[in-house]
Amino acid sequence: MQNIGIIGLGSMGYGMAQNLIKAGHRVWGHDINPDAVARLQGAGAAQSALQDHAGELDALVVVVLNAAQTEAVLFGPEGIAPKLRSGAVILSCATIPPAFAVDMEARAESAGLQYLDAPISGGAIKAASGELTIMASGRKAAFEAAKPALDAISAKVFEMGERAGAGSAMKATNQMLAGIHIASMAEAITFALAQGISPARFLEVVSQSAGTSWMLENRAPHIIEGDYSPRSTINIWPKDLGIVLDIAQTMGFAAPITETALAQFRAAAEAGLGAEDDAALAKIYAKAAGLTLPEGA
Amino acid sequence: MQNIGIIGLGSMGYGMAQNLIKAGHRVWGHDINPDAVARLQGAGAAQSALQDHAGELDALVVVVLNAAQTEAVLFGPEGIAPKLRSGAVILSCATIPPAFAVDMEARAESAGLQYLDAPISGGAIKAASGELTIMASGRKAAFEAAKPALDAISAKVFEMGERAGAGSAMKATNQMLAGIHIASMAEAITFALAQGISPARFLEVVSQSAGTSWMLENRAPHIIEGDYSPRSTINIWPKDLGIVLDIAQTMGFAAPITETALAQFRAAAEAGLGAEDDAALAKIYAKAAGLTLPEGA
Repeated sequence: MQNIGIIGLGSMGYGMAQNLIKAGHRVWGHDINPDAVARLQGAGAAQSALQDHAGELDALVVVVLNAAQTEAVLFGPEGIAPKLRSGAVILSCATIPPAFAVDMEARAESAGLQYLDAPISGGAIKAASGELTIMASGRKAAFEAAKPALDAISAKVFEMGERAGAGSAMKATNQMLAGIHIASMAEAITFALAQGISPARFLEVVSQSAGTSWMLENRAPHIIEGDYSPRSTINIWPKDLGIVLDIAQTMGFAAPITETALAQFRAAAEAGLGAEDDAALAKIYAKAAGLTLPEGA
Repeated sequence: MQNIGIIGLGSMGYGMAQNLIKAGHRVWGHDINPDAVARLQGAGAAQSALQDHAGELDALVVVVLNAAQTEAVLFGPEGIAPKLRSGAVILSCATIPPAFAVDMEARAESAGLQYLDAPISGGAIKAASGELTIMASGRKAAFEAAKPALDAISAKVFEMGERAGAGSAMKATNQMLAGIHIASMAEAITFALAQGISPARFLEVVSQSAGTSWMLENRAPHIIEGDYSPRSTINIWPKDLGIVLDIAQTMGFAAPITETALAQFRAAAEAGLGAEDDAALAKIYAKAAGLTLPEGA
């Protein structure tokens, strides 16, 4: 049993926090939304504020939106890193640029802390069931210190290397494919519809054929059901594919398919769909082609 | 037991012909390459020429490269359609534009023939094992007449509609996704390599994550093994994605991701890689980024 803090109690972080509690750890949650903190306290978290117990933590899990928020919660004016005890481990779970992860590791180590570059994959459902996939890298000691937390939240940990950065590089690669596959599903399901093939029939045939993908099978049902309540939002993709293209540009790597998919997600965000489920990208194609997608119940 | 002719004994057609023979049918094969015809005769096909027995056929399977060849073998100066008996069924298996399939059905019916729009999916391995997926459409009588042949060559027949065109529309949609997924695999496996992640590690992690696709899992091993012997060639894609974009243009449907993937395949064909396995698209990315892909044994 460990003392574990978790910052960021959104759709991913809240599920992870529940599984840390379920595994028997003493858990402090923190979020800019006090309701989320209170809700976690009602679900078994410690009743006191994370900030008042920072020095007692064995591990701190950071599940915020991006690099800027990760830096702010750790090293900003009210950052928690200076209050952690020597040897405590930070698990950094947001999708961030690999070079930023390298920088965070250096700053954490300068402060006497362990750092694990630990981006997560699997969505809110896997977060809730404690079965996330984690693409992690860091020193052996950081992996060892993080093991109790990792065991509670994940089904699979890919050990990508002995320094921070490699985990985030793998996550960026996976997001690149995931984003392209969502966008290509949207392009194809509307292309089929324009030819008279219903979204339901599209999914039935493609899911049993060579054109299928994990994302297609996961997201196409949202379109068939006309349900765009956000499991993962359109707004995630300009951010994550932006990270991919920033990395690519730094390396002089041309990624034209990623660029095209990003342009589609940006168009959807600009059309006011940013807070909808990312399957709503199909609405952009449908509107341009004058098609009517299925409506929800 | 039926009398069945098959035109086009390439990597798909030869396997299909073998399964027609294995199912007990009397089979005549034809190909512009006489060696392929002789080889099929050695494997149990009738020893006489297809052209001399056209009037005895119950079914004719056409597995040529494209629409132009399909039209030539059926209705060209030496076309076989006028020689077929009334009520015989044509199974048209090439990837062709839906509008062309509609035209072929009309011409076949004018000649007293049945026509099944029956594009195939699954690759040479499934053709050889008699387990193709077929996205078919046509009149009920055409499906009934084609059943013995379909049973011999396929594991799954999707019945897409009661007239020709719907099968080819579904096939075009599946090819759209398949082509994009091969191209995005090539983009991502090299993006990972540029960051120090080996192609083997890439496949291990992505195949267990949300970024995976059927094509990624099928084609990435070719890159890992450095084996570009053609299972399906680069040259297929400018043709098939060209059909997709022709359909899209006719309907006023914008398909920017398909366009971008097509541009990559065209670049590969122009670089002299057209006859290589389509996984060789990764070479275009590797060359542009100065990366070294694994070499074959």
